[in-house]
Amino acid sequence: MTEKSGQGRSQVDLLLRGGVVLTMDPARRVFSPGAVAVRDGQIVAVGLERDVAARCEASEVVDCVDQIIMPGLVNTHTHMPMSLLRGLADDLRLDVWLYGYILPVEREFVNPEFCFLGTLLSCAEMLRGGTTCFADMYYHEEEVAWATVQAGMRAVCGETVVKVPTPDAATYEEGLRYCADFLEHWQGHELITAAPAPHSVYMCTPEILRETTELAQRYRVPQLIHVSETKEEVEQWIEATSMGPVRWLEEQGVLETKVVAAHCVYVNAEEMSLLARYHVGVAHNPTSNLKLASGVAPVAEMLEKGLAVGIGTDGCASNNDLDMVEEMRLAALLAKGFSGSPVAVPAIEAVAMATIYGAQALHLDHLVGSLEVGKQADIIVVRLDETYAVPRFETTGMNIYSYLVYAAKSWDVRHVFVRGRQLVRNGELLTIDKEEVISQAEDLARRINRFFVEREKNVLDKLVAIGGLKRQETFEVQAKGILQSEEAFRKALQHPDIHIIRHTSRDQYDTYFIFDDPEQGWLRYREDHVIQPDGSVEPIYFLTLTGPGKEDVYEGSIVLSRARYTAPADRSLRFYREYFQPKEEREIIKHRERYHIRYKGLDFAVNLDRLLKPASRDLFVEIKSRTWSQRDALRKAKLITELLRIFGAQPEDMLQREYVDLFSETGDSE
Amino acid sequence: MTEKSGQGRSQVDLLLRGGVVLTMDPARRVFSPGAVAVRDGQIVAVGLERDVAARCEASEVVDCVDQIIMPGLVNTHTHMPMSLLRGLADDLRLDVWLYGYILPVEREFVNPEFCFLGTLLSCAEMLRGGTTCFADMYYHEEEVAWATVQAGMRAVCGETVVKVPTPDAATYEEGLRYCADFLEHWQGHELITAAPAPHSVYMCTPEILRETTELAQRYRVPQLIHVSETKEEVEQWIEATSMGPVRWLEEQGVLETKVVAAHCVYVNAEEMSLLARYHVGVAHNPTSNLKLASGVAPVAEMLEKGLAVGIGTDGCASNNDLDMVEEMRLAALLAKGFSGSPVAVPAIEAVAMATIYGAQALHLDHLVGSLEVGKQADIIVVRLDETYAVPRFETTGMNIYSYLVYAAKSWDVRHVFVRGRQLVRNGELLTIDKEEVISQAEDLARRINRFFVEREKNVLDKLVAIGGLKRQETFEVQAKGILQSEEAFRKALQHPDIHIIRHTSRDQYDTYFIFDDPEQGWLRYREDHVIQPDGSVEPIYFLTLTGPGKEDVYEGSIVLSRARYTAPADRSLRFYREYFQPKEEREIIKHRERYHIRYKGLDFAVNLDRLLKPASRDLFVEIKSRTWSQRDALRKAKLITELLRIFGAQPEDMLQREYVDLFSETGDSE
Repeated sequence: MTEKSGQGRSQVDLLLRGGVVLTMDPARRVFSPGAVAVRDGQIVAVGLERDVAARCEASEVVDCVDQIIMPGLVNTHTHMPMSLLRGLADDLRLDVWLYGYILPVEREFVNPEFCFLGTLLSCAEMLRGGTTCFADMYYHEEEVAWATVQAGMRAVCGETVVKVPTPDAATYEEGLRYCADFLEHWQGHELITAAPAPHSVYMCTPEILRETTELAQRYRVPQLIHVSETKEEVEQWIEATSMGPVRWLEEQGVLETKVVAAHCVYVNAEEMSLLARYHVGVAHNPTSNLKLASGVAPVAEMLEKGLAVGIGTDGCASNNDLDMVEEMRLAALLAKGFSGSPVAVPAIEAVAMATIYGAQALHLDHLVGSLEVGKQADIIVVRLDETYAVPRFETTGMNIYSYLVYAAKSWDVRHVFVRGRQLVRNGELLTIDKEEVISQAEDLARRINRFFVEREKNVLDKLVAIGGLKRQETFEVQAKGILQSEEAFRKALQHPDIHIIRHTSRDQYDTYFIFDDPEQGWLRYREDHVIQPDGSVEPIYFLTLTGPGKEDVYEGSIVLSRARYTAPADRSLRFYREYFQPKEEREIIKHRERYHIRYKGLDFAVNLDRLLKPASRDLFVEIKSRTWSQRDALRKAKLITELLRIFGAQPEDMLQREYVDLFSETGDSE
Repeated sequence: MTEKSGQGRSQVDLLLRGGVVLTMDPARRVFSPGAVAVRDGQIVAVGLERDVAARCEASEVVDCVDQIIMPGLVNTHTHMPMSLLRGLADDLRLDVWLYGYILPVEREFVNPEFCFLGTLLSCAEMLRGGTTCFADMYYHEEEVAWATVQAGMRAVCGETVVKVPTPDAATYEEGLRYCADFLEHWQGHELITAAPAPHSVYMCTPEILRETTELAQRYRVPQLIHVSETKEEVEQWIEATSMGPVRWLEEQGVLETKVVAAHCVYVNAEEMSLLARYHVGVAHNPTSNLKLASGVAPVAEMLEKGLAVGIGTDGCASNNDLDMVEEMRLAALLAKGFSGSPVAVPAIEAVAMATIYGAQALHLDHLVGSLEVGKQADIIVVRLDETYAVPRFETTGMNIYSYLVYAAKSWDVRHVFVRGRQLVRNGELLTIDKEEVISQAEDLARRINRFFVEREKNVLDKLVAIGGLKRQETFEVQAKGILQSEEAFRKALQHPDIHIIRHTSRDQYDTYFIFDDPEQGWLRYREDHVIQPDGSVEPIYFLTLTGPGKEDVYEGSIVLSRARYTAPADRSLRFYREYFQPKEEREIIKHRERYHIRYKGLDFAVNLDRLLKPASRDLFVEIKSRTWSQRDALRKAKLITELLRIFGAQPEDMLQREYVDLFSETGDSE
């Protein structure tokens, strides 16, 4: 350039010129053709191209003719490393998805390397799609922060704290310590805001909330938390505390800090006002809330109430991508469909949610969210040259927003700048080695695949995966018989050689899962209703995996040795059904009187069973005893045969079987 | 290739090899690595690569390693030419959008060239996004068909028939004739199925439905029709016919033909069964139904009932793109959020809806929708190399469908084939000159923009655009006065010189729209409640556009000459508000007693007005008379001054104004 041209013009680092500039400033000004000038990572001029260009001498000029120049998109809620679990297990109920897949994998694979790699993979996708800033909630958040800095992005990194053990903390005290160190370490960083992320009211103790609130206040940073995502969660909370989650958070003093509340699907008018009063930022996650069938957040009402409602993708495990353009469109569409008003959340509002409202929600609007002089140069350039971008109308003044929301795609993003640094040029990532990240992700996927393939092959491993297992080797002698009459049995209990030690009465509801491979044995879900002396019933639920056993027969009795694994069944039958996917199911319901007796100096268990399903008129007597040696087994087998006679039942070979085999319709597990 | 290699191998035109083949056949078989062989536009082999490759000698081989080979996507409901109206007017209520924008533009611009160009533009977008087949409903359908053939795509082209005039038919008889010729002309075409498209039950007469049904039967083609898209539509229909639209269609014999029913948002269980019984195909349009706030179709239930439910984008005016990958995702997500079940419409079902179910819905599943030997080679190849496509899991057997539905984008489509002919190679269109189509679309957009800019500038034109206008030049003398007392007025009516000819009493609710440019005058929406002798009220609604007038003052009276345009206000105030977007609104409510009197041989209208809003204790008397000459005006002005005195009101200059100006808070319309 000549001396002359430089006269009276200020030197800038970067000039984006010729495009349609959507400032998203309070007046929503649009300059076309417009320009934006950047110096030292800050916006120093925004306006019509002729004005800005006349005032600036730029070291680098980016031609944006026929493109949109706008603020970078702000993703207000995600779990970056979970991109490594994308598509692992979809279309399942929340508990199956969480307990059956996500938690086991997190236990097995989530470590610092996992979090660093996952964050890089997510940054690559986000940058390519025009996202320049995000709020994350995960573990090993130090790694998330480092990966984000490497990518050159801006983020609120929330270290998740929960009351249960996590991949980076055996106890929540540990988690809080990690959190405190993390905040201390990153304070004042130009791109990273390190923040505490108490998971939710139901996953945190009041103490955790007090501590994170204290940390947020000390370091003047936001707190990230999930709020009222599902109906059940809210109902249970109200039942437990007679207070809605939002009020509870107020009680705990959490709302005194800069809070970012993810989801807010079930918040009533009063709660919205409360959130507004405390300037709580809201992260709306349309795809995730639909995919997990949580519901639809009342976005239009929240916006009316003056709440800063941003948009989030949530983690890849529930989305499955990180496409803010998609989320922006869905936010606009969903609000209309569910409010019944086609004018709800018009395109310009949806764009605001993805930019300036998002920045407000993260309490970063003093830095980003709009193209205004003095703000950070987080800018994206979006092309308008695809078939779905034409024709271009100027009939309503809103057409350009309408294009962005209802037709544009994330891959239309051509250039991305954060603090004036170019991170994407013509759709190419400049700070991340895409191929390398992808190949590392594929390596990990292969390992996770193997983990699951192994697990799927083996019922025991699946049982182990959901935890709480107890193994026990059993080696016992047992025999069954059909009773002549109940009287005979009752009389036999008076027999001089039979001493009753203990007696219980119970109803047993058993569901047997049968698997293709008989080697897997069968899994029994038992609901055991023990009838107490006072007549009350105390149900016990447990799972028993019984492996195929070695059998020997000694006269009428059978000697079984096999491995049994039992675990408390703390989830529903439906859960186990969807999780284990048995080939077949069989149900046995019986009333059982159990007598622990001593006979000829040895202990036996005698069960008087009345089968209710499948119904049988017969009364069965089952006699069992633990045994430790062949000789002992032989001796007990003899005594069992005697006992069967005393109780007036005759042994039959077929009765050596379990009820489940005895009454199998198909019997194909034999 | 050598002789040898050819031995025992059959010659084929095309071999797609190495990819993951999603057949979408009844068993949903997946071959990986798989291959598909094509000869004469038909699929001759599908299976594992090693088997197929071993059997085939191909003239052309396409390497699909690490890509998905699947059936082309089927868009079951759209309006192709409307891509030229993309983004014209969004986020408006249906009536404003339709009557204010779409219909006026269609009246002005829709001709054969428009339909040909618009279809090419849509084909370009569809092909790029993996759509190979669609069902269209529009006008000048001959042009739609020709453009589709040029693009090489497959389509059911439905010529729309309605009871009102259309861009290609002044009467519906004409429309039916066009339709008959169209069906005759295209019968047996290898790509095009020409079909009648009666718009809907409410836009068609029974005669139209009889005729289109007769045509569909004669040519053995489907009928395309909109069914139960909105709640109002269904409620009104039931009110009018005491029968739901579906039952009505059965009554008319329409369901005897191969029907494709678009939307079906409001169909109950009984109607679903009815649709299933007649094998009616359903086109589900998730984006359109949300965007227009119509609601959400009960897709999960319809699928359960065994209905063939395909997916449609609807026209660009209500979407605003033609992205079937997006629609597929939304269909899967919405069903979950709407049904509250996260397992509703799993990914594999969503892919089926976009392919084989769509083909069934269009009654074309004998030709397309799945990759099976004997079917047409409508095939797409989708890449898996983007960040959001990793990691790739094989944990559930459904991961590949999950990837397609929840993460893939339309731009991942690399190759597209229809009848074995390649239409897209590496994302490049082979049959359409994209740049040329875009530039033509832009030219048209410029013309439409001008049309609207002109119209927006001018309230009168906007009024004309929605029709029913009557122009009248008025030239009248008028004066207002404030009454001393009502008694004085009543007494005056007994005055010997005053003869009452007619007397009415009414409540008038006026809303004035004030515009930025005073030259526009103001628009009045009047609800005139004339109180009948029997005390009953008969409201009249009309719009009056009053231009700025020339004024002269003769003593207390004012002589006004100005143009007035009146039109019956057959739509809601809300409609006019959103359509005209006034800068300001003012409301005047008054009770008016009108006396038509004769005074000294001349006719005058005397109004006794009691203002209710803004409320005023004063009673106003307004005296008016038509006039035709300056001399006559001068004479009448004198008489009006006399009359005002007789009625006991004194004239004031300020009272020469209209009430709306008299009581304007801001007065800025002066």
